[in-house]
Amino acid sequence: MRLKKVKNAEIIIKNSKYIVKEPHAYKGKFNELFSNKNKIEIEIGMGKGDFIINKAINNPNINYIGIEMFDSVIVRAVTKLEQLNLNNLLLIKIDANLINEIFSKEISTIYLNFSDPWPKNRHANRRLTSIKFLEMYDDIFMEEKTIIQKTDNADLFTSSLISYNNYGYKIIELTFDLHNSEYNKNNIYTEYETKFSSMGMNIYYIKVVKD
Amino acid sequence: MRLKKVKNAEIIIKNSKYIVKEPHAYKGKFNELFSNKNKIEIEIGMGKGDFIINKAINNPNINYIGIEMFDSVIVRAVTKLEQLNLNNLLLIKIDANLINEIFSKEISTIYLNFSDPWPKNRHANRRLTSIKFLEMYDDIFMEEKTIIQKTDNADLFTSSLISYNNYGYKIIELTFDLHNSEYNKNNIYTEYETKFSSMGMNIYYIKVVKD
Repeated sequence: MRLKKVKNAEIIIKNSKYIVKEPHAYKGKFNELFSNKNKIEIEIGMGKGDFIINKAINNPNINYIGIEMFDSVIVRAVTKLEQLNLNNLLLIKIDANLINEIFSKEISTIYLNFSDPWPKNRHANRRLTSIKFLEMYDDIFMEEKTIIQKTDNADLFTSSLISYNNYGYKIIELTFDLHNSEYNKNNIYTEYETKFSSMGMNIYYIKVVKD
Repeated sequence: MRLKKVKNAEIIIKNSKYIVKEPHAYKGKFNELFSNKNKIEIEIGMGKGDFIINKAINNPNINYIGIEMFDSVIVRAVTKLEQLNLNNLLLIKIDANLINEIFSKEISTIYLNFSDPWPKNRHANRRLTSIKFLEMYDDIFMEEKTIIQKTDNADLFTSSLISYNNYGYKIIELTFDLHNSEYNKNNIYTEYETKFSSMGMNIYYIKVVKD
């Protein structure tokens, strides 16, 4: 991802009501922050936030949390959000590796959109669908465990398929060409998806669940 | 598949020593026909036979059985075989739907190469990787259960992935581009594979196992 520097990004992020300031304090009780018992869905690596912002707008009865590590993209999401008034969306600035330090048995769905493919074998553990991460997700999921992934990267996708398969996930939806499939009907495009698609690249898509 | 008529196909097939005349009689004891206890691998829908013939030539210590329904293509395989002297390959002319009437707990590997995709949903059960067929394969497999599949058809491949995953198969090898993958090293091309590949189409490949 190309990261253009935004002036005062740090200050803008710090002052936004959408950013959870001390996420560790809400571990296991994020529902308190939303003041309701609706289910919570998260996007790990939300980038500039188009996907999760539109999800939140379209589904007022679901709570959303966007996870992102980089100021340079979080600030874009924050800027968009300041023009809206959403009470079902929050953002957390944290490394995905620490995700089970801030959540506990409270997430129903994880969205992984165009995650870093980490193509080298020695970096396989860093992929957000490696067994290492699937194990972490077990700690943050409620009973209902759903992962919904989109990517244009065939190697990441095959690697993810193998992980899901070996870790006991059941495949519910699967296509190698999302935009020409039945699953595109409710699909919300990310910034990159629009770009990739206009370049004629297929988008791989999968929805998996585990008991 | 385009089926050109071969003159006297029926007679040529009937007279070939490679064709098992009464396959039902050997159910559970095909090893007797090979006069050894080597493992048995089958290809369902072998077409003109290039794949399984080359497999048999390269692996003299494995027994192979090619399954095909249509005279018009079996006769091509038979014609090639009459010029060879292989004692580890036999052919059976039968509909794949009847496969568990001729085998019982004696197959170690099933090869599915460029199987009919049966694209319509109402024909999904006819796909050789539908749950209906996976259930049948349970009856013919020995303890070691391996399915190795190649196809250029994305819809058949996604449908197969879902079947394997949800039926408890473990993915051992997977690529969406066989000819540019590490798995191409030992790959034996089928007639159609050569053609598809030269047209620039990706070949999907998967190897799955089940206990």
